[in-house]
Amino acid sequence: MSNTAGQVIKCKAAVAWEAAKPLVIEEVEVAPPKAGEVRLKILYTSLCHTDVYFWEAKGQTPLFPRIFGHEAGGIVESVGEGVTHLKPGDHALPVFTGECGECPHCKSEESNMCDLLRINTDRGVMLHDQESRFSINGKPIYHFVGTSTFSEYTVVHAGCVAKINPEAPLDKVCVLSCGICTGLGATINVAKPKPGSSVAVFGLGAVGLAAAEGARISGASRIIGVDLISSRFELAKKFGVNEFVNPKDHNKPVQEVIAEMTNGGVDRSVECTGSIQAMISAFECVHDGWGVAVLVGVPSKDDAFKTHPVNFLNERTLKGTFYGNYKPRTDLPNVVEKYMKGELELEKFITHTVPFSEINKAFDLMLKGESIRCIIRMEE
Amino acid sequence: MSNTAGQVIKCKAAVAWEAAKPLVIEEVEVAPPKAGEVRLKILYTSLCHTDVYFWEAKGQTPLFPRIFGHEAGGIVESVGEGVTHLKPGDHALPVFTGECGECPHCKSEESNMCDLLRINTDRGVMLHDQESRFSINGKPIYHFVGTSTFSEYTVVHAGCVAKINPEAPLDKVCVLSCGICTGLGATINVAKPKPGSSVAVFGLGAVGLAAAEGARISGASRIIGVDLISSRFELAKKFGVNEFVNPKDHNKPVQEVIAEMTNGGVDRSVECTGSIQAMISAFECVHDGWGVAVLVGVPSKDDAFKTHPVNFLNERTLKGTFYGNYKPRTDLPNVVEKYMKGELELEKFITHTVPFSEINKAFDLMLKGESIRCIIRMEE
Repeated sequence: MSNTAGQVIKCKAAVAWEAAKPLVIEEVEVAPPKAGEVRLKILYTSLCHTDVYFWEAKGQTPLFPRIFGHEAGGIVESVGEGVTHLKPGDHALPVFTGECGECPHCKSEESNMCDLLRINTDRGVMLHDQESRFSINGKPIYHFVGTSTFSEYTVVHAGCVAKINPEAPLDKVCVLSCGICTGLGATINVAKPKPGSSVAVFGLGAVGLAAAEGARISGASRIIGVDLISSRFELAKKFGVNEFVNPKDHNKPVQEVIAEMTNGGVDRSVECTGSIQAMISAFECVHDGWGVAVLVGVPSKDDAFKTHPVNFLNERTLKGTFYGNYKPRTDLPNVVEKYMKGELELEKFITHTVPFSEINKAFDLMLKGESIRCIIRMEE
Repeated sequence: MSNTAGQVIKCKAAVAWEAAKPLVIEEVEVAPPKAGEVRLKILYTSLCHTDVYFWEAKGQTPLFPRIFGHEAGGIVESVGEGVTHLKPGDHALPVFTGECGECPHCKSEESNMCDLLRINTDRGVMLHDQESRFSINGKPIYHFVGTSTFSEYTVVHAGCVAKINPEAPLDKVCVLSCGICTGLGATINVAKPKPGSSVAVFGLGAVGLAAAEGARISGASRIIGVDLISSRFELAKKFGVNEFVNPKDHNKPVQEVIAEMTNGGVDRSVECTGSIQAMISAFECVHDGWGVAVLVGVPSKDDAFKTHPVNFLNERTLKGTFYGNYKPRTDLPNVVEKYMKGELELEKFITHTVPFSEINKAFDLMLKGESIRCIIRMEE
């Protein structure tokens, strides 16, 4: 592939010209990677709610035309100056947040919130020169969270690229770039349930199902799914959820329902909806003495988390997490290995696949709530 | 001493006949311990704010006449039926909360909130038969938190008695029964600062100074004391506090002041005042990515802890603790050893001593804010 190194590559990309309008497959020019950057040939990408959220552009400053996409698997085509941990031909997952390796967060064992490469949804250009690497007839097309994987080729900061086992099937492990790791890590890395323990998962979308999968892998014996949509329970069983509570079915707060089911509260809870009421319930439903609640879902700007402080003093813990506390470059290769060993089951998250030419179908499926993950095949 | 086993002992006790009135040294009759109980000869006791709070009886149902006191060191005089872990002559610390060893909390490695023997400030009798072991002329005198150490002899549930190294000086280690362990354990067991890290301590009373001592022992390099009384800083230096912030000196929230001092926030904070505003500040002043805040101070009944949930999502942790997460029987002997090895310095907490006949002086000193701990010598 290295014959394209240093050259502009012309390829197909799905361009969002304006908010909430179907993407259009266009021929784009992808500039070579500059210092500290990598150009990836994307083989598989998948659609995540965050793409849809920013494509709809209801809550933020719109930035168009833009190439969305941030869950993907690909192969390094070429690398820019100074990139040493990746070389052409490496199999890789781009990630919306990065690991510069130098900042206090990267140096901390506890944090993955890299100062330099932390997610930035407002920026549509590369950090190096504040310019885009995508263009059509000389007109720049904006990047999205530094990944823009709805393109046959994309340029990503090298700190946002995890090198993985080349044996790993990219059409499966591509889903680890965002939602699945977010839920999985919230349970495995942050809530850390012990074998035989009880875990409540609030919200049974892709992230919540991944949190349940984390509880299953951790050996939790009671995995209680909490969702307003009862039809989600059947599917959730595949992910280890073995009890279900629909708050609508009860005339008391769901934290009280769960406390009654579990002799005082669950050992761990993971909140994956972003609803402030669910956050409060997720905290108050953990057992005193040892309960840990983990917040994953992103709240609204003006929400306030509110509880009686005695709920903390009775030895409950509340934590939040970002991308499941995974450091992209350091930890993703190990998550891929967990899949390769059969511990982590990714197939069950993948409900649909479409060719790149039909990428808008993936949006339809997600908007209708029919898919967990829809894989988009770049090569048909 | 075993010649008194099974007999009623007549001895001196400081009786609180009514709220906020000076204690009166009376001759009381102390019944022998019943099944699962221990009778202790108290040699040293110290005064804690909690004694004063319940003696003043401003906020709770008053229960008088009562024998207060819950920080003490003594020697087992006799044991009731079924008590196997203690025998006459053992050196021991009674504790206001216990460890039955059988309940889910005792069996959990993470909790010390024993279901059976958790603190109960409303109960003035023994669990076994709901009766008092103290009387004057046949009239019962109420117990306080199961300890009532302002008496030459007292009866305590065996699950609330820690057997300690007989070489340990009881006039020093008696302070471990409550406040000192509460602060010390909040830092060492719960906040767990790493060597070289920064710790903010809110409130520089006895518990806060013990939290600072825990930070010093843990090797924290910046220990920031936060208090509304600037004169407390000088004394706090002895406990490792090396920076001081008085919120009154700033026209912005103290969490912002601390974030500016520490390049984004402290690594750990420990809240020892019970003020709801201090709790919120203590949480919001920890660094994103890895900060942990620990609540120790007891809030008012109607307080609400309130913060933006994004403060959690940015990987901050909030925990609460009770008695520093120490299990009384399992862990106190080790804390005593920490003192014996010179790692924990208890002498600096002891600012005064008085003979038992002058116990009311200890109350005066605490009410005036002049003492950290005043030791009361039972034998003069």
